[in-house]
Amino acid sequence: MSITYKDSGVNIDAANAAKARMKALVERTRIPGVIGGIGAFGGLFEGAFPGMTDPVLVASADGVGTKLKIAFMTGRHDTVGVDIVCHCANDILAQGARPLFFLDYLACGRLDEETVVSVVSGVAEGCVRAGCALLGGETAEMPDFYAVGEYDLAGFIVGVVEHSRMLDGSAVQPGDVLLGLASDGLHTNGYSLARRVLLDEAGLPLESTPEGFECSLADELLRPHRCYTKPVLPLVQEKRIHAIAHITGGGLIENLPRSLPEDCGAVIDRTAWNVPPVFRLIQQKGDVPDGEMYRVFNMGIGMVLVVAPGEVDHVASSLEAEGERVIRIGLVESGPHHVVIEGV
Amino acid sequence: MSITYKDSGVNIDAANAAKARMKALVERTRIPGVIGGIGAFGGLFEGAFPGMTDPVLVASADGVGTKLKIAFMTGRHDTVGVDIVCHCANDILAQGARPLFFLDYLACGRLDEETVVSVVSGVAEGCVRAGCALLGGETAEMPDFYAVGEYDLAGFIVGVVEHSRMLDGSAVQPGDVLLGLASDGLHTNGYSLARRVLLDEAGLPLESTPEGFECSLADELLRPHRCYTKPVLPLVQEKRIHAIAHITGGGLIENLPRSLPEDCGAVIDRTAWNVPPVFRLIQQKGDVPDGEMYRVFNMGIGMVLVVAPGEVDHVASSLEAEGERVIRIGLVESGPHHVVIEGV
Repeated sequence: MSITYKDSGVNIDAANAAKARMKALVERTRIPGVIGGIGAFGGLFEGAFPGMTDPVLVASADGVGTKLKIAFMTGRHDTVGVDIVCHCANDILAQGARPLFFLDYLACGRLDEETVVSVVSGVAEGCVRAGCALLGGETAEMPDFYAVGEYDLAGFIVGVVEHSRMLDGSAVQPGDVLLGLASDGLHTNGYSLARRVLLDEAGLPLESTPEGFECSLADELLRPHRCYTKPVLPLVQEKRIHAIAHITGGGLIENLPRSLPEDCGAVIDRTAWNVPPVFRLIQQKGDVPDGEMYRVFNMGIGMVLVVAPGEVDHVASSLEAEGERVIRIGLVESGPHHVVIEGV
Repeated sequence: MSITYKDSGVNIDAANAAKARMKALVERTRIPGVIGGIGAFGGLFEGAFPGMTDPVLVASADGVGTKLKIAFMTGRHDTVGVDIVCHCANDILAQGARPLFFLDYLACGRLDEETVVSVVSGVAEGCVRAGCALLGGETAEMPDFYAVGEYDLAGFIVGVVEHSRMLDGSAVQPGDVLLGLASDGLHTNGYSLARRVLLDEAGLPLESTPEGFECSLADELLRPHRCYTKPVLPLVQEKRIHAIAHITGGGLIENLPRSLPEDCGAVIDRTAWNVPPVFRLIQQKGDVPDGEMYRVFNMGIGMVLVVAPGEVDHVASSLEAEGERVIRIGLVESGPHHVVIEGV
């Protein structure tokens, strides 16, 4: 009996059908700099940056993580793509970079055309939010790797920053103010713990609306990673920001020091903002220690801007005008290179 | 009872231990252009390309695919990283690009420090072979996603090419010669079919040495993807190459047309080279149709260079001097945009 590739679980025709439908999604994300269409071996982008004297490319790779399980459980696949692009865009924004292009890696056990197109529609939406082009990607069908209906999604972004505008911590001074930007829920971190506590241990149904929530648990857990690129980038270009920390896995405790010089630390006043209900629910249901919460979750702060005291009012009002919620959460201090969260 | 992140299956300490050991591996791949060390939110690379008048960035994303299963079965994790880098480097070489930097995405169910370091050592080796920097990456521990001992590995590469040297098919003429470069086995494609036929159906032990093989089946199936960057790139820069096709999933039949203009096709003489034993074994044990074999596997040809007849001798001898095996496999013809493999 003759065996074909399709018999072994790989359906090239289904992949080609999905690819054809991706073209319109990719087209949505086209920005100046993109050369040619999709279908070539590699995606092409202009590498001359007129008006920049010393451009630096900034690149980052990341995955959505086990937030994907919520997409599988609810059958809603159009938001996780937003998550991965916005996560990556925020990462390079931490160094002041403007995103240029993004590529995705989507691996599944059995390629379902509708699911793939839905995921990629989210990737395209994320690219629109971040202002970058979806330049390419890989959709892999890997039988025996992923359960039917499951997949993994990772992404890769490249941006550019003028060397003299690059944020590397060197501009930070003791006395600088830490401005927290409100997050949209868990973003893309801590889902293994959140699922374990809320779904496995507490047994909460995803369609329920827990006390204090304004939406179902499913909606809350699927809220896309907020993209801070468009409101924050102009302030970087005006040199009003000394440093930026993207609050991802590791929370405020591990991420904030990455943006500060070695001889500085930070003190954060945890009473400066109300920790959103989803974090309080996880902590309560799992009896999770305070320190662990601030090391795993963003606790309501998705990004921290380090700003000179004299710039605080301008920066805050500019961001608020763009729809951000800005909270003065603490200060930079000279001393040990770590974060003290007062009261934790 | 209190629940921590570690209880939920994510071990930040193990990840940090692996990261510390990666630093030396990353250092091996440092090339001019890399700025700073690892640990920042994004990796940094010089974006000014002195001496180039119109640089174009070329980017590609890919995964290793189910070749990973052979690594799991044998416990040999130090070659799949070579595969993914060389695959990506060859992809952008098809447009004439010199690789600049690479980022990896490694996702596992349970983070085993030794395995992660072994995989990344292969990634670093691949970067050395391709001549690019390992600029960053993501190592994700995703409980419930991957079986214990299993992982997925994807990668992203960015290269640069002078616009006037970029290969887009427009230089190709009817009568151009197709020079095939010998592959090192299956490279990174067709493993779902190969495993199904050789391991599941034929039941061949990985440690056996099938007739005609010079090594064990495990060694053959783990041979790393050959990197053609270093021998081929100088010929691109000298404008001696009209087009390049990287022969990956889809084989000669689907990949060669991607490098040719719409009004040209190709005729390939299958008797021009001996198809290596591993492909013959798969075809025989699985009774796989000829057309399917040439659509799934590289059949011994890892890359095809499209070259004017007058350049053939120079190009071939230059490549042979660098250790490549070069085979004249066919011709470009005007006519339908497809590949005819004579005798298939």
